[in-house]
This record gives sequence, structure tokens and C-alpha cells, in this order.
Amino acid sequence: MKNIAIMCSGGDVSGMNPALKHFVEYTKSKNITPYFIYNGYEGLIDNHIEEATYKDVAGIITRGGTKIGSSRSKRFLEYEYRKVAKENLDNLGIDSLVVLGGDGSFRGLHQFYKDFGIKFCGIPSTIDNDINGTEYCLGVDTALNIIKVAIDSIRDTASSFKRAFVIETMGRDCGYLALITALTSGAEMCLIPEVEYNLADYEKKFKKEIEDGRTYFIAIVAEGIKQDSSEIAKWFEETIGMEARVNVLGHMQRGGNPSIYDRLMAYKFVNYAVDALLKNQNESVVCYTKKGFVYKNIDEVTKPYRLDTELIKSL
Amino acid sequence: MKNIAIMCSGGDVSGMNPALKHFVEYTKSKNITPYFIYNGYEGLIDNHIEEATYKDVAGIITRGGTKIGSSRSKRFLEYEYRKVAKENLDNLGIDSLVVLGGDGSFRGLHQFYKDFGIKFCGIPSTIDNDINGTEYCLGVDTALNIIKVAIDSIRDTASSFKRAFVIETMGRDCGYLALITALTSGAEMCLIPEVEYNLADYEKKFKKEIEDGRTYFIAIVAEGIKQDSSEIAKWFEETIGMEARVNVLGHMQRGGNPSIYDRLMAYKFVNYAVDALLKNQNESVVCYTKKGFVYKNIDEVTKPYRLDTELIKSL
Amino acid sequence: MKNIAIMCSGGDVSGMNPALKHFVEYTKSKNITPYFIYNGYEGLIDNHIEEATYKDVAGIITRGGTKIGSSRSKRFLEYEYRKVAKENLDNLGIDSLVVLGGDGSFRGLHQFYKDFGIKFCGIPSTIDNDINGTEYCLGVDTALNIIKVAIDSIRDTASSFKRAFVIETMGRDCGYLALITALTSGAEMCLIPEVEYNLADYEKKFKKEIEDGRTYFIAIVAEGIKQDSSEIAKWFEETIGMEARVNVLGHMQRGGNPSIYDRLMAYKFVNYAVDALLKNQNESVVCYTKKGFVYKNIDEVTKPYRLDTELIKSL
Amino acid sequence: MKNIAIMCSGGDVSGMNPALKHFVEYTKSKNITPYFIYNGYEGLIDNHIEEATYKDVAGIITRGGTKIGSSRSKRFLEYEYRKVAKENLDNLGIDSLVVLGGDGSFRGLHQFYKDFGIKFCGIPSTIDNDINGTEYCLGVDTALNIIKVAIDSIRDTASSFKRAFVIETMGRDCGYLALITALTSGAEMCLIPEVEYNLADYEKKFKKEIEDGRTYFIAIVAEGIKQDSSEIAKWFEETIGMEARVNVLGHMQRGGNPSIYDRLMAYKFVNYAVDALLKNQNESVVCYTKKGFVYKNIDEVTKPYRLDTELIKSL
Repeated sequence: MKNIAIMCSGGDVSGMNPALKHFVEYTKSKNITPYFIYNGYEGLIDNHIEEATYKDVAGIITRGGTKIGSSRSKRFLEYEYRKVAKENLDNLGIDSLVVLGGDGSFRGLHQFYKDFGIKFCGIPSTIDNDINGTEYCLGVDTALNIIKVAIDSIRDTASSFKRAFVIETMGRDCGYLALITALTSGAEMCLIPEVEYNLADYEKKFKKEIEDGRTYFIAIVAEGIKQDSSEIAKWFEETIGMEARVNVLGHMQRGGNPSIYDRLMAYKFVNYAVDALLKNQNESVVCYTKKGFVYKNIDEVTKPYRLDTELIKSL
Repeated sequence: MKNIAIMCSGGDVSGMNPALKHFVEYTKSKNITPYFIYNGYEGLIDNHIEEATYKDVAGIITRGGTKIGSSRSKRFLEYEYRKVAKENLDNLGIDSLVVLGGDGSFRGLHQFYKDFGIKFCGIPSTIDNDINGTEYCLGVDTALNIIKVAIDSIRDTASSFKRAFVIETMGRDCGYLALITALTSGAEMCLIPEVEYNLADYEKKFKKEIEDGRTYFIAIVAEGIKQDSSEIAKWFEETIGMEARVNVLGHMQRGGNPSIYDRLMAYKFVNYAVDALLKNQNESVVCYTKKGFVYKNIDEVTKPYRLDTELIKSL
Repeated sequence: MKNIAIMCSGGDVSGMNPALKHFVEYTKSKNITPYFIYNGYEGLIDNHIEEATYKDVAGIITRGGTKIGSSRSKRFLEYEYRKVAKENLDNLGIDSLVVLGGDGSFRGLHQFYKDFGIKFCGIPSTIDNDINGTEYCLGVDTALNIIKVAIDSIRDTASSFKRAFVIETMGRDCGYLALITALTSGAEMCLIPEVEYNLADYEKKFKKEIEDGRTYFIAIVAEGIKQDSSEIAKWFEETIGMEARVNVLGHMQRGGNPSIYDRLMAYKFVNYAVDALLKNQNESVVCYTKKGFVYKNIDEVTKPYRLDTELIKSL
Repeated sequence: MKNIAIMCSGGDVSGMNPALKHFVEYTKSKNITPYFIYNGYEGLIDNHIEEATYKDVAGIITRGGTKIGSSRSKRFLEYEYRKVAKENLDNLGIDSLVVLGGDGSFRGLHQFYKDFGIKFCGIPSTIDNDINGTEYCLGVDTALNIIKVAIDSIRDTASSFKRAFVIETMGRDCGYLALITALTSGAEMCLIPEVEYNLADYEKKFKKEIEDGRTYFIAIVAEGIKQDSSEIAKWFEETIGMEARVNVLGHMQRGGNPSIYDRLMAYKFVNYAVDALLKNQNESVVCYTKKGFVYKNIDEVTKPYRLDTELIKSL
């Protein structure tokens, strides 16, 4: 008999709840006792850890966010607090963790493993899709579809009124959300942190298109580009000569009923993560690659992410 | 045989397209020839006026915005341009207009009628729901439901992470959107331009709720309150002691597939508007009141709007 | 200090959960203790009655159906079981009920009142919108919008493929759902139980339209028309000469995240219902009429419903 | 300079419109003239072929179905008609086709190539996801998400009322839609054509669950299982002793605003298909495999499909 706990760490994503549900079902089917660590590292330190039941996960498959909460924690950076965490786990007989989070979370657990030998398996979870070594992070598909609805909605109003819209997606270092939604919504402009741009290059093209009859523009820009979205809007007004509005999509990108793809990926990620712990594999992260699901070690996953160059070419 | 034209003026709303479709069908069933004036007053001046066909309106019922465009116009304030507009209508034998717009648009047409006797019937259309004399303006229900989806989505993430969210809805002078969405989404705070507020009043209440276990707050604020949304967020962080985020919903509130209610109201508004013109009624606006649909005159409709006091009491 | 219980009876509708939430909040604000009767009449008999808390209603505002369950009950038709129900209420000091249900449910409570003097106030709740005396029953707007999405979706495929689609909505005796969705989605045919129809009348019209270039038809039919939907499809294939498919929308019409309109109506219905009981009003039903909210007595509400003749004329 | 035409064949899927849009954009960027063949094989025979413009594809990215229509054709089975089709293409200087369709469509084009040397590249398009050699067929993700919404909606009502729901998805020979939606929505039963089942095996399990407190069941069944859905419902009523309802989802599964995944796959499929024709590759089909996109020949793609055994194990 074995006890495994699951926790969420860092920003929440849609797909965490389906993962929690399947975690309970899959561990029980393997005669493992599942535990929930509430509120991420904070709950680990504060001993907010409870055995998970079917009842806990009833009906959560349709909800965004995470039922067990998440957090960022400064305390976990200190050895003293990690030691408390270790004692909490010992008291419950838990020696393995499944962790839904990003590279920062994995780094914290790496230290925890080095200190105390608590095994973990990571499931990449961030709507930014910016974890090295995996093509997909949990939550991305739901986020993309939420952005799609917003863009489709704004396009209606843009086309009625001769206007440019500058729509800002999340993505501080990574333009994945902006790039994919621009590509799939026919946006006229897409600016991302990974690619140098020069507004002057767009000027001639856009003025020509206006001459040819174009009456509106949709620009999708990632949060992390060097300019503020309002500067892009100002450029449309002053240089292109078209009234412009900014729409910062914000946190609504995170939530919402998980898409089929995120539910299915949650299912598969959890299977691989639990299997890894059953095989006593240490410090691995489940990655989805061009060759299917593989395990990668912590070093690879915590390297800086680079956006698919093929996708960048579509710009 | 009679010719009637329809135009959209001011901000577009979801529901204009179903209104255009039904306008074509209803006029034709009455042996009237329907015309579209493209791009609002601008098209009226520039003679962008065309006979409307079934083909023009095929498939538009599911689209937000307005297929015939809209505009605001400074030129129409000048007699010279209004005279050009009148000549354009004369040339096509059009003496009556249906106008989807707000009180500003109706005022312009009032002047046009005084100058040249062009009759019109107005259909109140603005997501702000701030036109005096009517309980409902076209587009409001769709806008409310779009805001609902955003709030439901944000609530997922708020509850996973111990955070306050300040969600800003449209409404420069009118808190209707904020008030109704706060009421129907269980928001903890709602601030609108019509009601004085004092953040200090919330402080004790919220701190007590945190003691009792509350882990997040949703505040819905209308665009037109005296403070910037970021100041409300700062208050949550500094006074309440909870991390806070701002989400300005922006123009995505305008668009989207029209709801059943807006499609049905579009249908009824158009019936009443065309009927008024057939009866040679002048300068009326179709209003939806507690007694059903009635016509009101331009003076009443252009008075300042006041929010339902019963609703305000729910705050 | 007073105790009031709420129950759901008959078919569930979207809007019941927001009503339950507001019931708890509104009664508590009036110093009334709220109780939930689980599973309708069955729970009343089986003493499944519990004090309702804020926690019970957390997060339910976004869910269709009813958290406290509903049922139909043959036992409640018998005096013996009603007597047991009365004793259960007495033991908890409950003398008044708010009931979300249809005319059948109200009739049961009428008998209960005659037997034992338990006061109630009814809130009309059925997606069929077929309760006499009220223009609106809780759940209808959400149902209409779900049907809208299905029709919009089917229209895409109909127009790609030269086909007729026969879409069957709920409504055994009442064509409201079919009529409104046909009107607002531009369906080419709408058949409802309240209106005699003759397929032969459509034949000439439809054949003419095919000659003029029409490539598909959408027919919306209510569950309760005299023919089976498959017969209508057969008529399209054999008489009109166009391949046809049937889509019976079924129970998915009932559920789904409540629309703003249903959430708002739930709020108002509950206010009126609780107020009636506080005023010791007996056996009333809150009705939404052309004059706003009014109370009607049980006799009026249980009369047969008649569809708005103005709407029927739109056919 | 080269001319390439695109056509849709067989059942329409959501994702065809984004593919058409990108086809126009991508061919033009390569200095190829794009043509649309309207209504599938029928339009090929009847010479309904036109040069495609940007205007043709404006705004279609958000629509399900296919703007250029589709068809099945008995005439194309005859040499005489294929010869007419070949002449139509010759007259326009078109020697290569991109075809969105299923294995039947590809077989027809194979014969056409053998007869007249018209090259083609196929894009697997069917919501059944049952084409051999590709892990993904265009349209599947949108269909899955539409089914998800329906199931989520039905679950609300199931849980309020103690009922079993038998939800029938499309899939005459292939249980993919049923299997994935069951897996991702936590359905209690899933029956598909590929797997033998015995209702008796479920009886003990379900009765035990009812004893343990379960109050409803969701069963997802594929269209092509050996029993009618109503028989499964009858089994729930008679053997399990729970009221049951059937919901046949039908054609609404086909349509709807394409999901991000389908829009992105449409983009990539089109790139690969056009590239194949530019390289004068014959009779290939773009397949998405565990190794990414590859071309497969017609023989492999027209073999019978087999469902992923790993997925089947999840049953």
C-alpha cells in the first residue's frame, strides 16, 4: 500500500480539476491512497493535507481553476520550512508527489528531493505554454478557445465601425497564445516577445490595404512585447489614421470549463505521472513531444523555452 | 408603394443584424421597398444608400455588430450636409427612416426632420441601457451574457488563488451592466456612477468575511465611477491585504452572436417602428415599458436617464 | 423568528439554483431561517429537510438543474403521506413554503393547504412556459438560448449540404419554445400543437423557393404536434424531394449555465415569494405579467394555458 | 503559373471553412491561382468551378460547415461523367486538386487519377475520426466539444432528478466520439461498436453504486452499436430500476464555430496538401501521426480503421 499526494503550484489553469478527478480514480484503481495538498507549497508547510475521496471530485470536471487551490510561496525557499513540509508528509506516510505547475515549481521540488528524498513527478501546467521540452502544457487549449471567442466577438464590432483593435493576450516571455490565436483568427498583425518587429514595416502594407478597401484591423499582441498595447493603438491612430481601441483580455483567459483536449491531456498526464511514481522514478516531468509522451529530467525542463520556429515563420 | 430606409448610428450593438433581417422581411410583406443606409450619417451624406435584398441579410442573424456599418458624424451637424442627405433621399423616393441608435442619434434626426420633414422612428440601441423612457435598449441582454461568461470564468481562477478581482464593465454614465451582472453573479462589491460609495464602508465587512473564511472577492465596477479600476485594486492590496487584479472587459462586451432575447426584441422593435412610419407618425421612438411597447416623443427620450431605484436598492 | 422552506417540484429548470442561492441570502437578511426540502414531495414525506447555509449555495449560481433535487410523487396524492409531511414541517417549526414548480405541483400544495393550513407561494418554473397567468416561467430563457445554439450549429451543416432539418423542441402541449426559436432563427417552417397545419400548404411555397435557389430548409417542430418528427422528414424527402434529417433536442434543453435573464428573474421571483409569505398571504403564485410582477391565486394559475395570439400570428 | 482547385466531399465538418480560407491565402502567396469546386463531385461534373478570391473567404473562419458545399455523387462512379469532369478542369487549366473528405472520396479520386492523371492530395475530414493511417481527422475536436457541452448540460438535469441518460453520439462504425467524450466527462457507461459488451456485466456494478448513494447514470453510446439507444434506456428502467431518457445528439455535432485546434489543423493540413501538389506528388493523403505530419498513399488510407487499443483499455 502506498500513499501519493497531488498539489497545484503557481498560476492555476483550466484542466487542473479534471486532473484531480482522474488522479483520485486512477490511484484508487491501483490500490494507492490519494491525498490532496491544499494551496500548494503553503498547504504543504501548514499541513493542509487530506485524504482525497470520490466525493471531493464529484462535479469538478466542468470547472476551471483548481478545487484544491494553489499558491506561490517564499517560505518554501527556506530549509526550515521545507523540513516542516517533509515532517507533514512523513506523518501521513506520503513519499511521492504529483505536481501540476511550471518550471519554478519543479525547481522548488528538486531542492526538496535533494534535501529529503521526496520523489515527485511534474505535469507541465501553464497557459503560456512556455516550458522547455514539452509541446503542450495543461490549460493551453482552453485558454486559446477563450481568446478565440473574445476575438470573434471583437471582430464583429470592428467590422461595423472602421476601427483597429489591439487585443492583448497573456504571455510575459512567450508569444504562443498570441501567435496561435492570430494565426487561427486571421488577425492582420501579431506581435510577440520572441520576434523583433518594426511598426514602420506594417505602415506601407496597411495603408495599401486601406486603399484597397479594408475597413478594420485586428492586432493580437502578447503581454510581454517591448511596447505597451496603448502605444500600438496610438500608432494606428496617428500613423495609419484609424481610430483604435485596446482590449487587455486579462485573467478571464485562465478560467472556464476545460475543453475536451485539456480534459484528455489531464487524463493522460496523470496516468504517466502516477506510473512514474509507482516505478520509483525520481524527479521526472511528463512531457508531450512529437514522439508522444516521454519523461524528461528536471534539468531539461527548467532550461529556457524556445518557441517553435516553424510557427514563427507563419508571422 | 413606399420606400423606407434603415440605418445604424453610434456604437454598434448585438441585435442590429437581426433587426436588419426582419426589417427587410417585414417591409416586403407590407409591399414597402426597403433600403439600407450604409455607415450611418456618413453614408446618408455620401449617398451610400442601396435597396436591400433578402440576399443581403442571409445568415446575418447569428452575427454581432451591424452588417451595414455605423458611424458618428460631425458633418451632419451642419445644415449644408443635411441638405445633401435630404437630396440623396429624395432621389430615391425615401421619406421615412428607421434608426437604430442612442439619444444623440435621435437628436440629429430631430433636427433633420425640422429642416426637411423626413420622418423617422427610433429604436433605442445601446448596451449601456441608458436611454430615458425605455426599460430596454437593443443589445443589452447579449452584452450582459458576455459579461456573465467572463465573470464566471474569472471566479474559477479567483477561488483557486486567494485574490480579489476588479472587473470593469462598460457604462460611462450608467451602471446598469455592472449592477445587473453583480446582482446575478453574486459579486461581493459593485460600484456604479449613480451611487456614492465610500471604500471605508466595505473595509470592516470584508475583513470580517476574511476572518470567517472568505478567500476571494469579485468587484464589478462600471467604467464611469470616479476612481480608476486600478485604484480599487490598490485598495484591496493595501487596505484589505489581498492580492488584486484588474480586468477591463472592453469591446468584447459589444459583439457576439445575439441572444434570443435580443433577436426577439429586434423583431418587435422593427415591427413597431415600421408600423409607426406607415401611420405617418413623426419623430417617435419605440420604447419598451412596464406596460409593453409604446411610442414616446423625442423630448422624453432625450432627457437624462435615471437608473431604476428598486435595482439600486439591491446594492 | 420564522422558518421558511423551499422545494423544487416536477421537471428541473435552469434558474432553480440561482433561486436557491438568493432564497438563502434574502431570508437571512430578513432574519428568517431558511430550510431546504430535498427531492421535492418525496423529501417532504421522508423528512429530508435541512436548514440551509451559505455554504450549501456557494458556487451553484452557474449550474443548471437544482442542487436540492426534485421529484414527482404519487404518495403525496394520499392523505396519509401528506399528514406525515405536515408532521415533519411541524417538528422543524416551518409553516410556509416557497415552491418552484408547475401547475401540477401547485395543485398538490393547494390540497396540502386545505388539509393542514401550510401556506405556500409558488414560482412558475418550467421550460415549456405553459402556466396560465404568467408571461414568463423560470428556465425558459436559458432553454431558448440552448436551442438557439443547436439551430445555429445545424444551419451551418444544412447550408453546406442541400438538406432539410427537422428540429424537435420540448413542449408537449405548448409550442412556445418552437415558436420563439423559429421566429428568432429564421426557420422556414414551425409547427406547434396550438395551431392546425396542413403540409400541403407548404408544398407549393417550398417548391417555388427551391426553384428560386433555396438549397436547405430548417423546420422547428414542438414535441406535441400530431405527427412524429420523422413523418415531417419523410414529407420533405418524398414530397419536396430533399434529403432530410431529424434532430430531437431532448433533455439538453433543460440544463446549462443559467442565462442572465433567468438569474435575474430567479432573484425577483424569490423576493416576491418570500415577501408574500411574510405578509401571511396564502396560496399565491408570483406571476410576471405585462404590468410587472403580481400575485395570482391558485385557481387562475391552474387553468389551461393559451399561447399569445400575437405570437401565433407571426407564424 | 499553376492552378489548383479545392473541393469538399462527403459529410461536412467544422474546420472546412478555415481550410478554404487558408487555401486561398497560401496558394496566392505561392503565385498559384486558387479555384473552388462547388458542391463536391456534383460541381466538378456540372462545371461549378470558380476562381477563388479573398472576398469569398472573408469572415468564414468562424462558421461551421463549408461555404462551397459538399455532396455525394453516384454519377462520378461512371466513366462518362468523370470524363466531363476532366474536360471542365482542362478548360480552366487545373491539373491538381486538394480534397477535404473521407476514404470514400479518396477512392473516387484515385479512379479519376488512374483515368486521367489528375493529381490530388487528400485532407482527412470526418467527425468520426475513422480514417486509417491518421490520428486526427479535421472536425473532430469541434465535434467533441459540442458533445461535451451537451453532456455537461444533461448532467445538470440528471443529477437533479434521479435518472439515467443514454446519450447517443455519431459514429456508425467507429466509437471514437463516444469513447473520448465518455472518458472526459466521467460517464458511467460507454458502448462502442468496436468492443463487445454485455449489459449483465454492468448490472451488479450499477446496483452496488445505487446502494452506495449514486443517484444518476450517464451512458454514452455510439450510433453504431448493435442495440438501439432506446433498448439501453429500457434496460436501465427494467433491470436497474431507474427512470431513463434517450438523447440522440444528431447533426448538431457537425456544425458550430470551429475550435482553435481545428482551425490550426486546417492551416497545417492545407500547407502540407498544397506543398505535395507543388512537388508533383500523386495521390497522397496528409496524415497526422505520432511522428507528426506525413504523406500516406491511397492504399493505406483506404484500409479499415482500427481504434487505438490504449484508448479502448480505458473503457
